[in-house]
Amino acid sequence: MALIVQKYGGTSVADPDRIRACADNVAITKRRGNDVIVVVSAMGKATDNLIALADQVATNQSGREMDMLLTTGERQTAALITMALADRGIEAISYTGSQVGIITDTAHRKAKILEVKGDRVRASLAAGKVCVIAGFQGTSTEREITTMGRGASDLTASALAQAMDADACEIYTDVTGVFTADPRIVPQARKLEKIHFDEMLEMAGAGSKVLALRSVEFARNHDVPLHVRSAFTWEPGTLVSNEEPSVEDPIISGVVTDMTEAKVTVLGVPDKPGVSAALFEPLAAANVNVDMIVQNTSTDGTTDISFTMPVADMAQSESIVQRVAGEIGATDVTHDADIAKVSLVGAGMKSSPGIAAKMFRVLADEDVNIQMISTSTIRVSVILPASDMERAARALHSAFGLDSGAAYSAPLPERR
Amino acid sequence: MALIVQKYGGTSVADPDRIRACADNVAITKRRGNDVIVVVSAMGKATDNLIALADQVATNQSGREMDMLLTTGERQTAALITMALADRGIEAISYTGSQVGIITDTAHRKAKILEVKGDRVRASLAAGKVCVIAGFQGTSTEREITTMGRGASDLTASALAQAMDADACEIYTDVTGVFTADPRIVPQARKLEKIHFDEMLEMAGAGSKVLALRSVEFARNHDVPLHVRSAFTWEPGTLVSNEEPSVEDPIISGVVTDMTEAKVTVLGVPDKPGVSAALFEPLAAANVNVDMIVQNTSTDGTTDISFTMPVADMAQSESIVQRVAGEIGATDVTHDADIAKVSLVGAGMKSSPGIAAKMFRVLADEDVNIQMISTSTIRVSVILPASDMERAARALHSAFGLDSGAAYSAPLPERR
Repeated sequence: MALIVQKYGGTSVADPDRIRACADNVAITKRRGNDVIVVVSAMGKATDNLIALADQVATNQSGREMDMLLTTGERQTAALITMALADRGIEAISYTGSQVGIITDTAHRKAKILEVKGDRVRASLAAGKVCVIAGFQGTSTEREITTMGRGASDLTASALAQAMDADACEIYTDVTGVFTADPRIVPQARKLEKIHFDEMLEMAGAGSKVLALRSVEFARNHDVPLHVRSAFTWEPGTLVSNEEPSVEDPIISGVVTDMTEAKVTVLGVPDKPGVSAALFEPLAAANVNVDMIVQNTSTDGTTDISFTMPVADMAQSESIVQRVAGEIGATDVTHDADIAKVSLVGAGMKSSPGIAAKMFRVLADEDVNIQMISTSTIRVSVILPASDMERAARALHSAFGLDSGAAYSAPLPERR
Repeated sequence: MALIVQKYGGTSVADPDRIRACADNVAITKRRGNDVIVVVSAMGKATDNLIALADQVATNQSGREMDMLLTTGERQTAALITMALADRGIEAISYTGSQVGIITDTAHRKAKILEVKGDRVRASLAAGKVCVIAGFQGTSTEREITTMGRGASDLTASALAQAMDADACEIYTDVTGVFTADPRIVPQARKLEKIHFDEMLEMAGAGSKVLALRSVEFARNHDVPLHVRSAFTWEPGTLVSNEEPSVEDPIISGVVTDMTEAKVTVLGVPDKPGVSAALFEPLAAANVNVDMIVQNTSTDGTTDISFTMPVADMAQSESIVQRVAGEIGATDVTHDADIAKVSLVGAGMKSSPGIAAKMFRVLADEDVNIQMISTSTIRVSVILPASDMERAARALHSAFGLDSGAAYSAPLPERR
């Protein structure tokens, strides 16, 4: 008998019909002789609606009170799926994060899991029950209700899979798996049968929304393979694991596009020790999430520093950067929200030199002007004008052999 | 320094504007130097909406899962008011029923409070904070989330007032207090400045919706005076207490009308021991909430038994009554949902004989046909045709001197 963790995301449980469809899938899995732990998100836009409600009520939104407010969404879904399972003759029981003993630190809205006790889950599984757990939440060492950040229901699922030594962790979402590119931007994009955690991490970091970065990190560090699949078509999805790529695997796994960032350039910065710290320390203190940072080599005793961050943080960063620029004697500050980030991700890069060079050649042939470059061992990211993003992504997707139907292997055996 | 418990009902916190208005009132109370415990209901129709959602998802609705689902509404309101208080410079903290240690038995959806620990509330009050508590809910001796029935936020408020030895317990609602009659039916109805718990209990039992029966029972048994008042006009309301009525107080406190019941009559019941038990035991087992029961004196060896119950229970009771009627040899069963109950309530009845007789005379003069009669020491209730209810209630209100403006004493000092 296998123990399977199934996580259902917000769109998968957005309305009564969808909740019943997910309950059907849980019932099928249970009837096949498996033990099942279900982790659920809030229904559809429930969390967004609660945030909007809080915005209408008050400007002071402490993390503690927002966590008290936002954790209710997942609890509602958990209770509803549990009732739907009863309709299907499946004994089930819902639990909050607190009730299953997901113990976190005290950092509200971005708490880290310290421990998963799971005593009540073990007892209920032993009694033959399906456990339905409200995702995204835990209880702190100070006995307060905490949440672990947007998308953290995936983290709840991974953590439970690890703590309970589950045989599989299935992440049900509104896409059929991880793709070589966003199909809305690159129509030739293909679903990947499998992907390595390191690549998935880089994709999440580069802006892919399929899995949240922290969830992938946790699953990788604890070696919990994730099966990302659709709660709409129920077809086999993408297996994310630590399995080493074989020589037949393509060098590049995907092209990731991201339009959610803006670029700031500080011009004419005196080239002397401490200027970067002077600039980025106050931004970090203000929780501005700086992504790429590029500093050119100094020529005339001054240099330019460019960095990107979420568009949402731009207003906040603007005043900070203006102030610091004055203090360090920079000549000017420019902002540009009209940019996009395009990244190539592939574990094969480690053993294949020249990927970056080829990428730049492809973009040059498309007459795309590269504004910033950043690399890791298995990723190359470039910032370019937003209007060039689609063209760049499609050209790269073709040039690196991702279009070809041949690379799409046979699907996994149907299990639903 | 006084400790004041303030409970805000669903309509009082139905939208962001209303939540802010209630937060204003809490802030004023706190700034006057009082300690404040706030108890909140779910926003407006939130609980009804969750019940409708559950109905759309599943027919199996276990008490445990419904409690998991329904308790989220009050938690949302608690978090929102707490944030609104922060906007007003008032330090506040929200708590669930579990967190404040409202320990109940294990009867989901109608749990009874066994104990109120309140340690965290005491600590937060000592730290100068306003405590905002999600009403209607507790945690059972089996560590499950429980609820205490519709309207039980009043009960939460009374229980906390008692456990914390509060100086006042204010119940904020959408009416300005307890009235001599429903003003929508009897336009001359007046707000009562005060009323005795015994009368309030009878009014609640007779169908008044201002306070839930169980809350009044608890408050009476533990001598927690309740101040029922409006969260819309903030004017002084009605004090419900154990204060003995004085000789100047009117004999009758109010006329209560109720159109939510239906009547069943079992005709030609053989007049022998055990027939009543045979009829009402299966109804009780089916949780049909039988209210009035009337059995006429036997004349020809058979008798008629009539009883009333909520219209909502009629379908369920119908098949039971038909079956039992056959078994005990009754000749026929009739149903009538087109009835109303009109009750006179007044502590002065104890020392004033003839109230019932006068009531029947007033109704006779109005040509209203009385179908059933039931009395307690301080209440007389009659069942009459629904179409006669308004006329009957107005006539009784006038005849017992409730219309007169003279009896309306000066309002309590303004406190808001």
